[in-house]
Amino acid sequence: MQLLLTEAALKRVGDRLRALAPDLDIVTLAPDGTLSRDAAEVDPELYWLSLDAFGAGLGHFFKHIGQGSRGQWVQTFNAGLDNPVFRILFEKGLRVSKSSAQAPPIAEYVVAHGISLLHPIAAQQAAQDAREWKRVPFTEIGSSHWLLVGFGNIGHEIARRVKGFGAQITAVRRSAQPDPLVDRMATQAELPDLLPQADVVVLACALTDETRDIANAAFFAAMKPGAILINIGRGELVDEDALRVGLEAGRPGFAVLDVFRAEPLPAGSWPWTHPNVRVTAHASNAGNGTLRRGDELFLENLRRFRAGEPLLNEASKAEVGL
Amino acid sequence: MQLLLTEAALKRVGDRLRALAPDLDIVTLAPDGTLSRDAAEVDPELYWLSLDAFGAGLGHFFKHIGQGSRGQWVQTFNAGLDNPVFRILFEKGLRVSKSSAQAPPIAEYVVAHGISLLHPIAAQQAAQDAREWKRVPFTEIGSSHWLLVGFGNIGHEIARRVKGFGAQITAVRRSAQPDPLVDRMATQAELPDLLPQADVVVLACALTDETRDIANAAFFAAMKPGAILINIGRGELVDEDALRVGLEAGRPGFAVLDVFRAEPLPAGSWPWTHPNVRVTAHASNAGNGTLRRGDELFLENLRRFRAGEPLLNEASKAEVGL
Repeated sequence: MQLLLTEAALKRVGDRLRALAPDLDIVTLAPDGTLSRDAAEVDPELYWLSLDAFGAGLGHFFKHIGQGSRGQWVQTFNAGLDNPVFRILFEKGLRVSKSSAQAPPIAEYVVAHGISLLHPIAAQQAAQDAREWKRVPFTEIGSSHWLLVGFGNIGHEIARRVKGFGAQITAVRRSAQPDPLVDRMATQAELPDLLPQADVVVLACALTDETRDIANAAFFAAMKPGAILINIGRGELVDEDALRVGLEAGRPGFAVLDVFRAEPLPAGSWPWTHPNVRVTAHASNAGNGTLRRGDELFLENLRRFRAGEPLLNEASKAEVGL
Repeated sequence: MQLLLTEAALKRVGDRLRALAPDLDIVTLAPDGTLSRDAAEVDPELYWLSLDAFGAGLGHFFKHIGQGSRGQWVQTFNAGLDNPVFRILFEKGLRVSKSSAQAPPIAEYVVAHGISLLHPIAAQQAAQDAREWKRVPFTEIGSSHWLLVGFGNIGHEIARRVKGFGAQITAVRRSAQPDPLVDRMATQAELPDLLPQADVVVLACALTDETRDIANAAFFAAMKPGAILINIGRGELVDEDALRVGLEAGRPGFAVLDVFRAEPLPAGSWPWTHPNVRVTAHASNAGNGTLRRGDELFLENLRRFRAGEPLLNEASKAEVGL
């Protein structure tokens, strides 16, 4: 059985990989597309798209998967499979497992930004700048209400952290099946009732036909005045024009955006300079543990694949609209 | 049995107080010192120093306690009893119970400031200000190490919140008795070994002869370069001159200070304008739930006092140096 992976990935886990699967035929791909084997000999059953393949290397991967005739399974670094290429993989009959490796840093990003805005750090700083010895009263985070739109790996990791503060958590997912981390589980249809109560609204769902433009004018109009919107999902979840109008009306009062409809966000785009918007460069996953966790996940899933056990984070056809 | 409390406190809990203890002889104190009863008739067994007594009203309270001859128990809003007046109460034979009501907001202050500095919010903002679409890599909070110097109510509440991020927690207290919230429990003598490993060091201990100036030149020299110091205990825990020198050397790299040796912090003091220091006005307790939790604590302790049960947060003589 043949595996295609990056040179960098092999460097990190080669020893463990060979110990785990001594019979595996390992082929590597360099960032410039160079294979470690004659192209005629390359038709892998297994593909590992590790995070280091992001960028140039990715196109080469998809070219090989597309040309291959024996593909069985792809482990990707992606958490969301909205890129149309994943639909093609399903159509070719491959299994696809997603990654949860970036969930902890993305959750850190969400909670760090949310808390830095809920706690009056800016007002405290303003008092300091004015050298004013002034008591700045605050509404406790423990009494705040967080609405997580989407409750996959990332939603779970967010909830785990917010829970420590005693905040109230409502999550929205397809099945409203309860979860001990969450005070209330709901479905997308209930958003109009949920939005007016939330102090922090996090978009952490996959991009699908049902969620595209979910944060539209009606969504913002239903928000609690002054509430915080955080988008770490996909830019297409948000109607950016409606967001701009919403911010004028204080609904939301503040937006933290890591993803945009156009990426990189063009230089002239309004979010760059809006006083109530924080812009980051699709990098909420940039924690130093992501690569290592991704390696562990691949090795565990390879073990499972070979043992015929269920894969962790295996995607369903429904996730790519099939 | 007579109880002295503030007018404001009676307004908040009068009904519940009368239901709980119908026989109680209730005397109120106005902010200007006016009693609701002729002074000759006032010699309470019980005193409730609620948070709203802070400021002017406090002197009147202590005057009455000092003059009284029947005092048995004081419930105060203080978490630390370093004010010499508490030693006098003990010497007069009164029991003193402290408050845990401010622990949640103080913990929020600590964790919000710590996380807002650990996560690269400032670097992300700088990239935004420059309109640079730039990936800002970060060390995950989950891999950070927090050292809590002091592990009372506040330390517990901090640990509960930090734990949600998966960070490592070491706490220092008199008895190194383990606690499930903490990865390692240690004593003050071990600080030289612990300080070099900590990314965030929180001073959350009582001010005693053992802890006065605990954060001195040797303490700072032992810190990990770039680590964060947060002081929500007492100003006298820190040698402020040594801190200034330490900051020059990057040990600590940043200080978040809510308490100072002189309060209000004089206008010309260096912390106001130091680029790596956040100054707040002894107000980390300024959460909107503190008053309510203090009311609940008093009512519960009053029930316990009357039932002969152990009081919550009762102070020991050792805490006032007796």
